Amino acid sequence: MPNPIDFYFDFSSPYGYFAAEKMDAIGAQYGRAVNWHPILLGAVFKVSGQQPLLNIPMKGDYAKHDMLRCARWFGLPFNIPSKFPIGSIAPCRAFYWLHDQDAALAKKFALAVYRAYFVDDQDISALEVALNVAVSIGIDKAALTAALNDAAVKERVKHEVDTAIARNVFGSPYMIVDGESFWGADRLDQMERWLEKGPW
Amino acid sequence: MPNPIDFYFDFSSPYGYFAAEKMDAIGAQYGRAVNWHPILLGAVFKVSGQQPLLNIPMKGDYAKHDMLRCARWFGLPFNIPSKFPIGSIAPCRAFYWLHDQDAALAKKFALAVYRAYFVDDQDISALEVALNVAVSIGIDKAALTAALNDAAVKERVKHEVDTAIARNVFGSPYMIVDGESFWGADRLDQMERWLEKGPW
Repeated sequence: MPNPIDFYFDFSSPYGYFAAEKMDAIGAQYGRAVNWHPILLGAVFKVSGQQPLLNIPMKGDYAKHDMLRCARWFGLPFNIPSKFPIGSIAPCRAFYWLHDQDAALAKKFALAVYRAYFVDDQDISALEVALNVAVSIGIDKAALTAALNDAAVKERVKHEVDTAIARNVFGSPYMIVDGESFWGADRLDQMERWLEKGPW
Repeated sequence: MPNPIDFYFDFSSPYGYFAAEKMDAIGAQYGRAVNWHPILLGAVFKVSGQQPLLNIPMKGDYAKHDMLRCARWFGLPFNIPSKFPIGSIAPCRAFYWLHDQDAALAKKFALAVYRAYFVDDQDISALEVALNVAVSIGIDKAALTAALNDAAVKERVKHEVDTAIARNVFGSPYMIVDGESFWGADRLDQMERWLEKGPW
């Protein structure tokens, strides 16, 4: 079996959303499984000393425009959310709890979360909103509510974020395949060349 | 006449070098003139609060790898210079002095500076090195030496950098065409679509 693509993203990241919409199709095209790893950029930024994009003078002004243009570039529906960025710990915990039962359903949930946030302007940082997204794809609300308060689930997220940081994941999206790292939706083309040709 | 492409770059920027090697061919393909504007990112970063790429924890480790891979992506010779980044005020002043006499020669000088730095590992921040690059393309050493100490030339650079900052140029390369801004060598593809189709 060829190595999987490790796909790291934050639910609050527009460029993570663009990559998420493309990732499994790219994996399928080149015969690679894709392991999805939502992370919390806030925790990463404490280590790397970065700050949210829109807070950076000059760069922030450009970033909104770039997000909208990149959405058109990738052919994806997109609106800048009213509240941006947000903390994404609730959907992150939900993802890993789901993942350990049904990895495909967890991906379906992740895409539903991204679309709720970046297409329908729902505040996915709110627990109730995250739960409603889960319910909309057939997940049991009571079981998920309990899971979100489970110490093991909280610990699982912490472990995933720590592992990501240890692998030098400093942004979203961030892909690692065969030990090669690619940061940004604008490196999907370079990653595809890697998948097609191997090291280049 | 269609609007020109305004092309902003710092002589110390690898991604600026990649763009510089492509820029005039892209302009020619779509019938656009290209106005080259070297700037000083150090002055820009004071306004935007950014810092040199390699100084950023985690991101800096990735950046070197990305520069090397992007050079291969663009099919360009490239080595990470022994001294990086550097202040680029000497070649910047030389560029504008040349530009006011012969814009084409100034571009030729800019490409020669970039290749001296990113291919031949010459420290272009050193006045003597910048002068030698100029001499290698037939520029009079004594005249350029005098120009580099000319208050009007110094003021010209300051004016160009201030103008760039006023236009929100926060990085290198940064292109503005028809009022539309594109940051990064990885936005050349989006700029080309703009040049081909107009607003999209």
